[in-house]
Amino acid sequence: MQPLNLPPRLLMGPGPINCYPRVLNALSTQLVGQFDPAMTAVMDEVMALYRKVFKTHNQHTLLVDGTSRAGIEALLVSALEPGDKVLVPIFGRFGHLLAEICERAGARVETIITPWGSVFDAEQIEQAIVRHQPKVLAIVQGDTSTTMLQPLEDLGAICRQYDVLFYCDATASIGGNAFNTDAWQLDAVSVGLQKCLGGPSGSAPITLSERYVSHVRKRHHIEAGIRDKQYARPTGSRIQSNYFDVPMLLDYWSNERLNHHTEAAAMLFCARECAINLLEEGLEQVIARHQLAGGAMLAGIQAMELEIYGDIRHKMNNAVGVMIPAKLDGEAVRNELLTRFNIEIGTSFGPLKGKIWRIGTMGYNAREDAVLHTLQALETVLRRHQCAPKPGIGVDTALAHYDKARSL
Amino acid sequence: MQPLNLPPRLLMGPGPINCYPRVLNALSTQLVGQFDPAMTAVMDEVMALYRKVFKTHNQHTLLVDGTSRAGIEALLVSALEPGDKVLVPIFGRFGHLLAEICERAGARVETIITPWGSVFDAEQIEQAIVRHQPKVLAIVQGDTSTTMLQPLEDLGAICRQYDVLFYCDATASIGGNAFNTDAWQLDAVSVGLQKCLGGPSGSAPITLSERYVSHVRKRHHIEAGIRDKQYARPTGSRIQSNYFDVPMLLDYWSNERLNHHTEAAAMLFCARECAINLLEEGLEQVIARHQLAGGAMLAGIQAMELEIYGDIRHKMNNAVGVMIPAKLDGEAVRNELLTRFNIEIGTSFGPLKGKIWRIGTMGYNAREDAVLHTLQALETVLRRHQCAPKPGIGVDTALAHYDKARSL
Repeated sequence: MQPLNLPPRLLMGPGPINCYPRVLNALSTQLVGQFDPAMTAVMDEVMALYRKVFKTHNQHTLLVDGTSRAGIEALLVSALEPGDKVLVPIFGRFGHLLAEICERAGARVETIITPWGSVFDAEQIEQAIVRHQPKVLAIVQGDTSTTMLQPLEDLGAICRQYDVLFYCDATASIGGNAFNTDAWQLDAVSVGLQKCLGGPSGSAPITLSERYVSHVRKRHHIEAGIRDKQYARPTGSRIQSNYFDVPMLLDYWSNERLNHHTEAAAMLFCARECAINLLEEGLEQVIARHQLAGGAMLAGIQAMELEIYGDIRHKMNNAVGVMIPAKLDGEAVRNELLTRFNIEIGTSFGPLKGKIWRIGTMGYNAREDAVLHTLQALETVLRRHQCAPKPGIGVDTALAHYDKARSL
Repeated sequence: MQPLNLPPRLLMGPGPINCYPRVLNALSTQLVGQFDPAMTAVMDEVMALYRKVFKTHNQHTLLVDGTSRAGIEALLVSALEPGDKVLVPIFGRFGHLLAEICERAGARVETIITPWGSVFDAEQIEQAIVRHQPKVLAIVQGDTSTTMLQPLEDLGAICRQYDVLFYCDATASIGGNAFNTDAWQLDAVSVGLQKCLGGPSGSAPITLSERYVSHVRKRHHIEAGIRDKQYARPTGSRIQSNYFDVPMLLDYWSNERLNHHTEAAAMLFCARECAINLLEEGLEQVIARHQLAGGAMLAGIQAMELEIYGDIRHKMNNAVGVMIPAKLDGEAVRNELLTRFNIEIGTSFGPLKGKIWRIGTMGYNAREDAVLHTLQALETVLRRHQCAPKPGIGVDTALAHYDKARSL
């Protein structure tokens, strides 16, 4: 029963990554009561902060208390009644996850699939919408399983045209890549803290359009134990989860403050700090920092003559897939990086298991020194596995990438 | 965008309460990767620690990443298939919550209800089991809405006799009142950190018997995005939530480490520290401390000639319901305690709204000084509201209660 004494890892995988120190500090804030004006003021402040993060005017911008897939499930299970049709374009693992969550909600799930490593054209998605006439389009922006970033900017208009609710899981991409909730006409978005926002997993910020909210409010039920004559009668079919019942979450986060769960205060304080940290540096500046770090990492990897996985034009700024050279034991390399250099890079699963490493440059670790240390350590380990690149070529290329960016 | 600067409240309501300082510190631990051996070692350690907290040998003792009702929902939605019958004895708000969660899972919910402020005899529950033959008995141990503590010790044998799975929500009671998972033959238990364990809300420890696990494992499905030839084919109907799919959580927490959510690391570290903090002081010692603090608070309140709510023989150690004297504005008193003395006591909801205050002595705040300050401040505020007790009677009685305990 000793205090935790964890190794000082540099987390350069697909997330979670190291938290910003100020975010860690915010977690240790002593609590106030659940309905204390000081607490509800923080909740209101967090709503305002995440409107800026999401680039939206949506009133209904709040947190779901759970990991990022808690946010996904809340938004989908509240929007979909059994039998409703949903279209899920799948370009990686997390598309499969969206489809599965919708199936479990009783929805009729239509999928279109593009090979892992590619993304969809807007036309492909429009055609599928015309063909299936879904109530909801559910799509991932950045799928860490493939490192691909799905363009979203043309999908909102299509969804409006065909009266489809437009949901996006932007967990892996938010804060490291452009994201514009209102400009792209998104109806519902969920994310997590553990990627480019630089916090730990465990809180899922969401933002909801009026269109989404008026849709889910048709299914409004108040808990028996706190029901009161003054409240409206229940309407519509009951959402199949209490925990993920978005209308109840909205009542709790509104001025009504109708009791639901007990807000996870430490994670609330942490989510607040993640947003402030991002906004103080500047949203565009942070995205540019991710672009720079991701670009330097990419250039370094390529200079080491390692092959990049997937359609590089659609790579996320904050992750890169690296083909593991034939005859190399990818797990042995990862293990040596971890145990000798305290650097973690990512493995893969599903169809890519054993085929690619995934290297992230996210949040706090979207930094020059983190990129350089990682490339140097990777070079050394590759050399020890009889797969030597030209000495110094990776790190020198990354240094040059940073120098060039500074000189512009 | 300032650092958080919250008032230093003394939280003497029904929870959340102030966290132990060491628990707050543990939240700020820098992360390691999700499948890092250093991380999975902490997960294993947390399992071992909570076996001691729950007094069980259950292998399957782990965390659900969400607030306490996330733990409730996971255990019920995984155990209940649509159409399954569940019996919920209701003696307060959280019984209603269990019933509602079961309804949303599609179960046929049978309830028995005892007036708020009382608890059930084992015979009443046995009769209802004989009458309804449910698959699951779902009951709360301590319901903060009424401050009552349901005796559980005779229910396990009854459940075994009639082949019923025995689930209990012990969120509000664990750590402050006796709880014996194995001795009481419980099959599934969920709790939260924010009451007597002295942490923030946001993680739900659970423990599961082999009986429960073999039941839910009949519904075993692996996510499409990570499925692999080597894994068993899906069996049984799919659990209607991905996030709360207990067999998938077990795969993640087992040596298989099959990817599900990204474990909420900060809350994991925090849950670990809550358990260590409890076990270092000693489980029985902590319960005794709650009994002492709760006894002193009760004695002080009674000495101030305030009426106690409910059946005092079945009161939780860690909370007391206080009847708000007629002609007194209960919210005005609460507000003055909060804004002038930085002390929070609890209000009520549902049928007790406006009728009782709920005063807690939990976790870090199950302390003599916290009891004394609260009684003194309450006396002063009552005096200012023309409801003066005999000067000093509350605090002196509590002091005497502590003195007497020390002299034994």
